[in-house]
Amino acid sequence: MSRDTQTPPIPGRPFVARRTVRFGHCDPAGIVYFPRYYELLNGVVEDWWDHLGLPWTGLIGERRIGMPTAQLDARFVAPSFLGERLDFELRVAHLGRSSLQLEHRVVGPAGDERVRFAQRIVATSLDTHRPIAWPEDLREALQRFKETR
Amino acid sequence: MSRDTQTPPIPGRPFVARRTVRFGHCDPAGIVYFPRYYELLNGVVEDWWDHLGLPWTGLIGERRIGMPTAQLDARFVAPSFLGERLDFELRVAHLGRSSLQLEHRVVGPAGDERVRFAQRIVATSLDTHRPIAWPEDLREALQRFKETR
Amino acid sequence: MSRDTQTPPIPGRPFVARRTVRFGHCDPAGIVYFPRYYELLNGVVEDWWDHLGLPWTGLIGERRIGMPTAQLDARFVAPSFLGERLDFELRVAHLGRSSLQLEHRVVGPAGDERVRFAQRIVATSLDTHRPIAWPEDLREALQRFKETR
Amino acid sequence: MSRDTQTPPIPGRPFVARRTVRFGHCDPAGIVYFPRYYELLNGVVEDWWDHLGLPWTGLIGERRIGMPTAQLDARFVAPSFLGERLDFELRVAHLGRSSLQLEHRVVGPAGDERVRFAQRIVATSLDTHRPIAWPEDLREALQRFKETR
Repeated sequence: MSRDTQTPPIPGRPFVARRTVRFGHCDPAGIVYFPRYYELLNGVVEDWWDHLGLPWTGLIGERRIGMPTAQLDARFVAPSFLGERLDFELRVAHLGRSSLQLEHRVVGPAGDERVRFAQRIVATSLDTHRPIAWPEDLREALQRFKETR
Repeated sequence: MSRDTQTPPIPGRPFVARRTVRFGHCDPAGIVYFPRYYELLNGVVEDWWDHLGLPWTGLIGERRIGMPTAQLDARFVAPSFLGERLDFELRVAHLGRSSLQLEHRVVGPAGDERVRFAQRIVATSLDTHRPIAWPEDLREALQRFKETR
Repeated sequence: MSRDTQTPPIPGRPFVARRTVRFGHCDPAGIVYFPRYYELLNGVVEDWWDHLGLPWTGLIGERRIGMPTAQLDARFVAPSFLGERLDFELRVAHLGRSSLQLEHRVVGPAGDERVRFAQRIVATSLDTHRPIAWPEDLREALQRFKETR
Repeated sequence: MSRDTQTPPIPGRPFVARRTVRFGHCDPAGIVYFPRYYELLNGVVEDWWDHLGLPWTGLIGERRIGMPTAQLDARFVAPSFLGERLDFELRVAHLGRSSLQLEHRVVGPAGDERVRFAQRIVATSLDTHRPIAWPEDLREALQRFKETR
């Protein structure tokens, strides 16, 4: 993790997506099986691109822009239980030429932290799987989100 | 990641588990969807406990010992494709009083690195979800693995 | 399937849950990978029990009532694509002493059928994994749903 | 199900693939969460095409032949538990012009039946998602498997 997880999260209002802990997320110990968090996280990132006005359907399908995760550091702070409502908070930490650094916090109903993720995404061509610079409309949308929060 | 991923992996012969990239692991971009790596990783850790002579069935079911992941840092170095055989290499980096630091490398058919994981596992009671010291037989098995590789 | 899938669905207004086809649901062919429908389906059934006022948290965790699927017949009529909004329609076909027959239709944005499921659920004790009669409050809630739709 | 599940399975030696019930397959009730069986099943079908000498990599990637599941009827006979070794048995029930009817049995360590699946697969073009006749080499491989078992 480039940022120490002990430090407070970066300032600004996050994008928030709510998720319910379902039966299928839980393991024989009765708590969320950690690989499920990654599926949930990816869905939240998808929702966020929708919110930015840039749904993945167009980006991936038509424009052949990939946004693979290059780095993903996780701290599992406390377990989550069946039926709980979790808020996934997403913040932009840094926007690079072809990269994007996101910070995610998953918090429980009492605002208590459950998981923290630091994620580095890279823009790529889906034809070559090589990095590309963020196309201008994506860069503008990401910059606007970062600045107006 | 506590260790710089640029440094060479810790020495010693790893535990290796082979996996095939299946259709269900791949996404519309035709490469492994990253959350699937975490499911595969957890299965490899299970296989390793089997190999140590301590299958999870007994640990979780009868002895109520949990081994949740507290920290998991990932570097996705290169994409993996449908049908490829991947080797998951597991090494013990450090054994603490109630923690265990593992290093994983996922390598492709040509020995080329695809993913690197640094994972911190904590021994817990499944009744309280609180950390416990490693029970003596587990500690011995972990220590033996660490020293004889 | 006990009912011919060519016949019209059973009458009455269904319980409806909307889902978006996410990146993680799709396969290298760019369409929903069929095992993902089953995860979605199970989440819809969970939502429905919530709607009935009987969340699984209490049923499974405290009362030790299981509701495993004994039979599940699926017709995959047409593929679904990334980004689509799907409506999962749930109807009660039959309520038995310890069983429950559900009919599900998954329809696309134009009301076109994508999948049809016939599901038989059985009430069990989670301690013995043996069938039990529906407890009275569950039976009443199920009966009420069936009659008022 | 076109065949009554009470009838004995079709004769002949099946293709068999062994799977271990992993932690990630199990739910808070401590048994296999039924959607996981479908992921396992699809992997077994993949292995079987490999065994026929026709790996999906070539079929899907290069030849653009899809093999979606059109119909899948399941009977969940008995629960499966963490750590168990399950045998997935696959038999060809019928080979049509563009369809293929498979019968699967999942049996436990004592040969006891856990799940039975009847699956209808259809050969399609991945460009149009419309049915196609089985290409000759696939038809021959399927026919040979059916007859020599």
